[in-house]
Amino acid sequence: MTPISFSFPTQEVQCYLNQPFRRLSEITAPADSVIITDYHVYRHHHEAMAGYPVIKIPAGEAHKTQQSVDYIIEELLKLEAGKDTWLVAVGGGVITDIAGLVSVLYKRGTKLALVPTSLLAMVDAAIGGKNGINTGVYKNIVGTIRQPSFIWYDFELLRTLPAEEWVNGMAEVIKHACIQDELLFRMLEQYNMHDIQTDLSLVETLVERNIRIKMNIVTADEAEAGDRKLLNFGHTIGHAIENLHHIPHGHAISMGMVAICNLAVRLNILEVQEAVRIVKLLAKYHLPVDLETDLQQVYQAIRQDKKRQSDLIQLVLLKKIGEAFVYPLPVDSMQEHLKHIMA
Amino acid sequence: MTPISFSFPTQEVQCYLNQPFRRLSEITAPADSVIITDYHVYRHHHEAMAGYPVIKIPAGEAHKTQQSVDYIIEELLKLEAGKDTWLVAVGGGVITDIAGLVSVLYKRGTKLALVPTSLLAMVDAAIGGKNGINTGVYKNIVGTIRQPSFIWYDFELLRTLPAEEWVNGMAEVIKHACIQDELLFRMLEQYNMHDIQTDLSLVETLVERNIRIKMNIVTADEAEAGDRKLLNFGHTIGHAIENLHHIPHGHAISMGMVAICNLAVRLNILEVQEAVRIVKLLAKYHLPVDLETDLQQVYQAIRQDKKRQSDLIQLVLLKKIGEAFVYPLPVDSMQEHLKHIMA
Repeated sequence: MTPISFSFPTQEVQCYLNQPFRRLSEITAPADSVIITDYHVYRHHHEAMAGYPVIKIPAGEAHKTQQSVDYIIEELLKLEAGKDTWLVAVGGGVITDIAGLVSVLYKRGTKLALVPTSLLAMVDAAIGGKNGINTGVYKNIVGTIRQPSFIWYDFELLRTLPAEEWVNGMAEVIKHACIQDELLFRMLEQYNMHDIQTDLSLVETLVERNIRIKMNIVTADEAEAGDRKLLNFGHTIGHAIENLHHIPHGHAISMGMVAICNLAVRLNILEVQEAVRIVKLLAKYHLPVDLETDLQQVYQAIRQDKKRQSDLIQLVLLKKIGEAFVYPLPVDSMQEHLKHIMA
Repeated sequence: MTPISFSFPTQEVQCYLNQPFRRLSEITAPADSVIITDYHVYRHHHEAMAGYPVIKIPAGEAHKTQQSVDYIIEELLKLEAGKDTWLVAVGGGVITDIAGLVSVLYKRGTKLALVPTSLLAMVDAAIGGKNGINTGVYKNIVGTIRQPSFIWYDFELLRTLPAEEWVNGMAEVIKHACIQDELLFRMLEQYNMHDIQTDLSLVETLVERNIRIKMNIVTADEAEAGDRKLLNFGHTIGHAIENLHHIPHGHAISMGMVAICNLAVRLNILEVQEAVRIVKLLAKYHLPVDLETDLQQVYQAIRQDKKRQSDLIQLVLLKKIGEAFVYPLPVDSMQEHLKHIMA
């Protein structure tokens, strides 16, 4: 059971790949741990959680709120959890985000372990330490950056994952390929959704490659002063769309990637053939590539984006597939651009 | 305008001593800053805040809640504050605690400056980076540790401080003397409340000495793995009393220090004459030294104390005035002790 290890300034993060859930108790014993999960995940995997105190919240992005944080803290108080208690988040990105935030706030910090149960959480949400909750229409306005002690990957957990959740996860896999890994991009062009869903060893290869891409970026720039911004490819417009239409994260990010590729083409930065390959790959993995939305509302949401500094918005553009860079643009000019790139 | 500088692993903290409030704009210009304060402080000092956007909440410990955090975040969104915005907390410990927490959470972290306006905040709350809000009857159950970029000391702000707030602050000054500075203790025995309230240069000497005591402890142990625990002298029982009776922090801590000195005497660790000197000094500075409370409720609150690890409670006891140490005690045994030391 040798993990891959990644070093952050204040924390070492261990990734245990392909480990059965039940062996988790060798590290975080039930007497020192509290599992945080949602009702949906609990229904599928409660047998593996036997013996642990479990705090459950309703599933879904709508519950990524302060109310859920308050509820979990009340339950932790009832369980008399202390600073030395392990909070073990078992779930998708909503659960890892909420539990991560609680682990920062409760009694000024507890121990934290993540067990991602969705492809999206495995390749993205569980990695890098960002946590957060939504405020009104704005995503992750409240949150921090805090690394877990370890991340536990049991690919068997994916066997109960609904088809649409595979699609959701592939959006971030394609994002990673676009910004940094042209070889991965070509690999994805060769396989298809069915290949991946039916072959857990292919999933393991894919997940490990994505872990390394994201971890290499975030260990070098935890606070997002530089290259970590590249991971926001497709996310500025994507987050805006996600909140307006309450569609799955992967769908919104897919639309955001299409829109931002259109912008890069419009600015003569990306060749149109490259943009076409990206759109085709997204469509191949059942992700939406048509852009229909309220431009004015998207623009307003972009004005509130966390990444905005003063009057500039830090957009991530591609020069080509596998090579991204940050392109600061006056936020006011986005209003005009949006009319063209999302028409 | 040369500050005293203290180094933390992830942050340098500058303390500007005896600087007029209006010069603050030389560091945090109104265009890049939002002041967070309470209505009470605003009434007294609003002229100095001219030009700044100001977010105001009601004054008092009762408002150190998630609702206040939510409100401030909503207002920051309306002001379109970004990650590069300075949050400038102007107020007592409630304000510095809430603003500190908001500066961690809002858009995953903003810049933070503290302008303490009470003696308590100057010598204690503004120093060391702890922030937090109360949850139900439990103090600071939700919070983090995050250092400000600077702390701004304008002693003129104390001219409008009510008499009871001077008393409140002296409890922490006496605490610092008890745990680490016998010379300061003797100095306090020589002066009295009136001397201090009427001589701002004496206040400056006193505050600077307290800043150095606390900063030396917290720079060496930010995460409270060791010596920082010493600052909890009087606080385990004190916090329990504070929440039960809703009395001022300094009053509760005074009672907590008396109780814990009684325990140290009972355990033959502290000489009774030393305990008597401490009780006398507290009384001299108008702090309560009589202990009347519901022992069972105090015990229950101690069980939920943040500092509790497993079944041990980390008490801070004095060997003598100026020398403190951590004494782990089974939490269950506190029930019996309380009957004797708070009788």
